[in-house]
Amino acid sequence: MSAGKLLGVGVGPGDPELMTLKAMRALGAADVIVHFAKAGNASHSRAIVAQHLRPGVIELPLHYPVTTELPRHSAGYRDALGAFYDAAAETIAAHLEAGRVVAVICEGDPLFYGSYMHLHTRLAPRFAAEIVAGVTGMSGCWSAAGMPIAQGDDVFTVLPATLPEGELARRLADADAAVVMKVGRHLPKLRRALDRSGRLPRALYVERGTMADAKMIPLAAKADDDAPYFAVVLVPGWEQRPGGEK
Amino acid sequence: MSAGKLLGVGVGPGDPELMTLKAMRALGAADVIVHFAKAGNASHSRAIVAQHLRPGVIELPLHYPVTTELPRHSAGYRDALGAFYDAAAETIAAHLEAGRVVAVICEGDPLFYGSYMHLHTRLAPRFAAEIVAGVTGMSGCWSAAGMPIAQGDDVFTVLPATLPEGELARRLADADAAVVMKVGRHLPKLRRALDRSGRLPRALYVERGTMADAKMIPLAAKADDDAPYFAVVLVPGWEQRPGGEK
Repeated sequence: MSAGKLLGVGVGPGDPELMTLKAMRALGAADVIVHFAKAGNASHSRAIVAQHLRPGVIELPLHYPVTTELPRHSAGYRDALGAFYDAAAETIAAHLEAGRVVAVICEGDPLFYGSYMHLHTRLAPRFAAEIVAGVTGMSGCWSAAGMPIAQGDDVFTVLPATLPEGELARRLADADAAVVMKVGRHLPKLRRALDRSGRLPRALYVERGTMADAKMIPLAAKADDDAPYFAVVLVPGWEQRPGGEK
Repeated sequence: MSAGKLLGVGVGPGDPELMTLKAMRALGAADVIVHFAKAGNASHSRAIVAQHLRPGVIELPLHYPVTTELPRHSAGYRDALGAFYDAAAETIAAHLEAGRVVAVICEGDPLFYGSYMHLHTRLAPRFAAEIVAGVTGMSGCWSAAGMPIAQGDDVFTVLPATLPEGELARRLADADAAVVMKVGRHLPKLRRALDRSGRLPRALYVERGTMADAKMIPLAAKADDDAPYFAVVLVPGWEQRPGGEK
């Protein structure tokens, strides 16, 4: 173990006010701040923490080599991402070996569908590592919508919209409450799956949930099938069950 | 709409440092702080915010009339809880009608398996209401364990341990990643369901995840079946899939 320390820091779903006190303290303690972004784009996580960055802190931006240009399960995608995370981990390892505190800032929660975990698995066996849990994007969305999502003995599930239509319909029917992520171009298929599973009337479509320009609309009332990659659909449990308490 | 305002404030999983800046601000703005507790017990959410309570703030403790004394699906349980939430909502409504800001503080996230939503459904139609999202208990647990829980196209699910064994086994086998809640006396059954679904070798047992006295142990290595109601079992996705990226 070196004297350096790796911090995986959740900075919440977008509203800087949804950062935790612990995340604030981590930003204050870090010598190096690492953030991910799509090449050519500004980092969302950096925007969230911008007003709290310590003057003089070293910034290490990491730009994904590919995002949606290659199929996710192709060897080309996997190899490009693997080499990218390997190189990023080595750059960070050099800072840790020099005794620095390195904070990788992550939208939402670091270990819930985040890129940080690719660095964590490479570095945590060699260096001290600590995770700062964060408010997830989905919590930000249902909170902004004021929509109770799950209660009591509900089964709650998170599904990627990339699943085949029949699989989506089956899983939507099998859960009390659901969040569907990565909606984007899958919206027409998702809409059919929600309809087949009887969940369409309660589905809420959400874009940029915790931002000032958030967009929320019952999916059944949304006239078009345009959706960005990061849009989500929320299907609440609880109230729809006959005999459910109120 | 009155001048009062209802705030459902998530205060995170237990570590006071995992409160958000927005929750801190809500505590500062509130005239009345409402917290739930089991009769005879101190409120967990109040303990989390204790050092940040404004002097002179009005406190309204709400004590559940029953918790595990009656079967959850019995009419007696439902009636007792329904009357309790009705009365609590009326007490809070009187404060709101007097123009006060009322903050209901909630462990974890207010709309994710929380009691707050029973007040929300009763009061939000009549008064201005705002939700402050919080870090969930399960995020606190996997972060404290340093365990990446879900990635990429993983299907993630939350299950109550109250489900029948066959149903637990089926759902555990059907998800990539899972969190099982309300473990308590259901641990022997849950252990069998994890074994049947092939997930036992990766299951992690967690008590008081974000507390100083947290207890974490691979479930397969846990020698006894003693577990408190609030213990959880984490089953990570991702790494167990053949060909999963690292």
